Amino acid sequence: MTTQLTDLSMLPHHDGSPLYVSTQTPSVGDTVTVRLRVPTALGPLQGVRVRSNPDREPVFGLAERTASVSGWDWWTADITVASREHGYRWLLRTEDGTDLWVNARGVFDTETLDSEDFLLVAHDAPPAWVSSTVLYQIFPDRFARSDAADARPIPEWAVPAAWGDEVRLDSAARSTQLYGGDLDGIIEHLDHLERLGVTMIYLTPVFPARSNHRYDSANFDVVDELLGGDEALIRLVEAAHARGLKVIGDLTANHSGDAHEWFLAAHGNPDAAESAFYYWRDEAHTEYESWLGVPSLPKFNWNSPELRRRFIEGEHSVVAKWLKPPYALDGWRIDVANMTGRLGDDDLNAEVRQTIRRTMTEVNPDTILLAESTNDASSDFHGDAWHGAMTYANFTRPLWGWLSEPLADAGGGLGMAMQTIPRYTGRQFYAAHRQFTAGFPWRVRLGNMNALDTHDTPRFLTRALPGTLPVAVGMSMTLPGIPVVWAGDEFALTGIDGEASRTPIPWSDADAASDTIDLYARLIGLRREHQALNDGGLRWVHVGDDALAYVRESADETLLMVAARGDVDVTLPAHTIPEGDIVPLFGELALEREGDGIRLTGSGPTFSMWQTRGVESA
Amino acid sequence: MTTQLTDLSMLPHHDGSPLYVSTQTPSVGDTVTVRLRVPTALGPLQGVRVRSNPDREPVFGLAERTASVSGWDWWTADITVASREHGYRWLLRTEDGTDLWVNARGVFDTETLDSEDFLLVAHDAPPAWVSSTVLYQIFPDRFARSDAADARPIPEWAVPAAWGDEVRLDSAARSTQLYGGDLDGIIEHLDHLERLGVTMIYLTPVFPARSNHRYDSANFDVVDELLGGDEALIRLVEAAHARGLKVIGDLTANHSGDAHEWFLAAHGNPDAAESAFYYWRDEAHTEYESWLGVPSLPKFNWNSPELRRRFIEGEHSVVAKWLKPPYALDGWRIDVANMTGRLGDDDLNAEVRQTIRRTMTEVNPDTILLAESTNDASSDFHGDAWHGAMTYANFTRPLWGWLSEPLADAGGGLGMAMQTIPRYTGRQFYAAHRQFTAGFPWRVRLGNMNALDTHDTPRFLTRALPGTLPVAVGMSMTLPGIPVVWAGDEFALTGIDGEASRTPIPWSDADAASDTIDLYARLIGLRREHQALNDGGLRWVHVGDDALAYVRESADETLLMVAARGDVDVTLPAHTIPEGDIVPLFGELALEREGDGIRLTGSGPTFSMWQTRGVESA
Repeated sequence: MTTQLTDLSMLPHHDGSPLYVSTQTPSVGDTVTVRLRVPTALGPLQGVRVRSNPDREPVFGLAERTASVSGWDWWTADITVASREHGYRWLLRTEDGTDLWVNARGVFDTETLDSEDFLLVAHDAPPAWVSSTVLYQIFPDRFARSDAADARPIPEWAVPAAWGDEVRLDSAARSTQLYGGDLDGIIEHLDHLERLGVTMIYLTPVFPARSNHRYDSANFDVVDELLGGDEALIRLVEAAHARGLKVIGDLTANHSGDAHEWFLAAHGNPDAAESAFYYWRDEAHTEYESWLGVPSLPKFNWNSPELRRRFIEGEHSVVAKWLKPPYALDGWRIDVANMTGRLGDDDLNAEVRQTIRRTMTEVNPDTILLAESTNDASSDFHGDAWHGAMTYANFTRPLWGWLSEPLADAGGGLGMAMQTIPRYTGRQFYAAHRQFTAGFPWRVRLGNMNALDTHDTPRFLTRALPGTLPVAVGMSMTLPGIPVVWAGDEFALTGIDGEASRTPIPWSDADAASDTIDLYARLIGLRREHQALNDGGLRWVHVGDDALAYVRESADETLLMVAARGDVDVTLPAHTIPEGDIVPLFGELALEREGDGIRLTGSGPTFSMWQTRGVESA
Repeated sequence: MTTQLTDLSMLPHHDGSPLYVSTQTPSVGDTVTVRLRVPTALGPLQGVRVRSNPDREPVFGLAERTASVSGWDWWTADITVASREHGYRWLLRTEDGTDLWVNARGVFDTETLDSEDFLLVAHDAPPAWVSSTVLYQIFPDRFARSDAADARPIPEWAVPAAWGDEVRLDSAARSTQLYGGDLDGIIEHLDHLERLGVTMIYLTPVFPARSNHRYDSANFDVVDELLGGDEALIRLVEAAHARGLKVIGDLTANHSGDAHEWFLAAHGNPDAAESAFYYWRDEAHTEYESWLGVPSLPKFNWNSPELRRRFIEGEHSVVAKWLKPPYALDGWRIDVANMTGRLGDDDLNAEVRQTIRRTMTEVNPDTILLAESTNDASSDFHGDAWHGAMTYANFTRPLWGWLSEPLADAGGGLGMAMQTIPRYTGRQFYAAHRQFTAGFPWRVRLGNMNALDTHDTPRFLTRALPGTLPVAVGMSMTLPGIPVVWAGDEFALTGIDGEASRTPIPWSDADAASDTIDLYARLIGLRREHQALNDGGLRWVHVGDDALAYVRESADETLLMVAARGDVDVTLPAHTIPEGDIVPLFGELALEREGDGIRLTGSGPTFSMWQTRGVESA
């Protein structure tokens, strides 16, 4: 019942990448040149138009055929950017009178929804380095412990653990088991990060709290003494910067902890200056809204101008403070961004995120702003504030579905429905991936976090089909977005849920894990060496149940990737990639030019990658 | 590459109708019971959940199997309404562990987008009679001319025409050819409307202007003297009401005419009180924004509080005036609602529409508010203001595509891309219809205008495949929404574009047209006699290239419709409709129960309809 065209070899292609759009940073009023490539084999066309939708009224611009190269015709049109989020799509009329629509979700022979249009974005652009980031996620209590940690008193709420102890999953210790990892511990292992080749550390919260995860912040103005305090953060950022590594922090914009001074002042005290910072359910201000009903996480009420002033707005706010010297963080990841500013009919989300970004820009525009939105994130991520989403719907969950043994109970991780891992074919991976990325403008796609797992999920390896780790890591490094390494994955750790995955890093096992560490290092290296993996276009060239193939491409180079959970015997049409020498970069699959095609064969699971020359289009 | 399930006989079903939702008018905080029916043949299920998304964070509620009747299992769950637009969808886990998602677009085996969720709406409800409306659209200059018209002076801008003259399509007379139809002419033909059985007249604008269409209003405070003035409108509404007919007007909220007193006062006069009513492009206020660049239609700037006060806000506004005695219109259709309040990054659309509806509610809540939005209308029509859309994307254009000869140039009508009628199969009709209705909550679907054509399009019959008029009219009367009869269609008029379709009604040919008039009257009669056609659920039961079948159903009755452009030989499974006597209501197809199925046979084109008993679900 779909009207989507499925023969990939005959599909016209456009994405928002530089091959197809003349600028990534247009302004309203600018004329932007956009291009569409059409397989010559599709036959002559009666015409091609580009449809814009200014003020929600369609306008059609005529495209001209400007080149015919290597099996592709190129059509070019101009768009005048009418608003900061300018939607457009393509319309082709074939020789026999069929209309084909090309949008961010695919190619269709019926009209398509506005929400699936490509988007030109004229909001302030993210820093250029965002798309070349490889992120390393650290949960400070579990990463590494410096000697200084021994001298620190154990807080009352904590259940102390030795580094080699098992992570406790029982409710008594889930949030309170404290291993004592600290920021100086991280400094001691920066060599490891350099070996991997990651470019940015993402620290989960470092503010004082009453839990090991610190998402229940008691104070946004100081770094937890258990982590070494403010000075340790300054030392860490300086040491990281000295090695060319960036560091970002983690802010809970949806809630504070119930031990936060603002909440303590306001609770039961309607006259407090901080009273309006929270949502109260009774006159005495003792009952309140909280994150998913968890009383230790009272929800912020962003209607309060004073809350905005203290927390997110202007150079004296929390958001600003940690980006400035001497702390000099390189940006923020915002926790529970999807719920932030939302309660029932209240929806201040856009105001809050735009205010956060405006403040960051005032203090240091060369910073990154990522935001958690674990499901369908598309509507909040049009580039007005968040540079990218920590979302699981378009990559993480489909990847698990394709490369895992089914799991009846994933322990609440992955935000999966009914706590499970679904069982996906490659076609389902592709359908889910396209569906959940279609709403993002290109620049946001490049900023989205492609994680195999995080501190909130099981670890991928726990249920991975044998031999699929290179496939999963390879895909995270080569699909558009920021690859994420959740610290410990490179040690081949497992963990059945988001608690179990917070295992202390087994530094003494580094030798045993060297193959896995080397696998990561090699794939990260390829990601960093090939610019087309950062911002090159994405074109799918094969979608089967057990094998997927796609191309990342620019004017400088074309990279062909094959990801397979089984054996491979696939022939792609010759026009899939430009003619010329093909250099194998990774993996064991054989590639041969055969007659009119390119044949790929070999045993799986496999991740394989080749390079050839860039795309000629004029 | 879709992950949509296509075997209709095995699909779980839910829609927003009373069979599946315990109330159509919930409030925030209410508990609403929702139900899902699942073909027993799908096999046992591990479980069913309903997923809500309050504050954009998924919450899963458990459903219970509460009945098993006539080949269907019924699952029931409770939802607490968290906001005025509360999205939800269903998740089923089959015996073999496959997850199926049921949303407004269909049934899928991958996760789905939030924008495709079903919606519970807690905004003020539309009047109950909205869904039982059959609308008759009148373009006053072309409907009928009373004797009084002879005495009226011809205005300077007009090119007078006699009733039998051809409509002129040349640019010199397109907007100025004046036939002199008037409101008393309509009164003289109310018998015709009673014969048809329509329930509401929609008048295109009646305010003074400098064109035959009057969308360039010069004054919203009086009725054009060419139409008989205020008194004629009072007479018309009284006469219509006396026959149980409602009457609505047409307002241009996007623009006025350039002869409007507000514009005349403001043009070239930056100090005028009305200066802020428009968008000026120069300091002298001589250049201005207008509808699609047409200078006679200057665009309103809804940032102006004074414009709001005069036009849409409060009991002294234009919106209010005409709903009150002695005029007592029953509502409004808003012109170019999609562009209203939008210019570049300015988007005041929600404020404007909500203000209009608030004013109407203050004056008379028993009124209807329809709004033009000719393409993808879903995002503005969640029930916060507009009761229904005059939109062509979900019904009109797909219907033309399925039932017309292809047309290379539809003259700008239908808002069609590149001015054409596409060539659709029944599957494409279905795909487009589902796609463009998925974003509407059920109550808005019941208020959307299902038009074969309007004053802005060619007439359907112009290019209809032979014999398909009953198919098209039948579908407009039986799919969810308000059927629209564009005056003249019942006279079998044709017209190649939106200008040519404004033919004066050939009253003297009424006898020759009596078959067509009777066809309309009979189908309108069925629509009015069967409540399930007003608000019963919609379930598709067959989708082929040349034949479509669907059911409208309630606890009281089940109606089966078959629409076909060719011959029919289709067998539906027995559980398609409840057991019991099947009463033919319309059309020539044969229906026989055969073994485990229901066989439908006969020659086409055809529209056929049967009734059987209502749906048991407990």
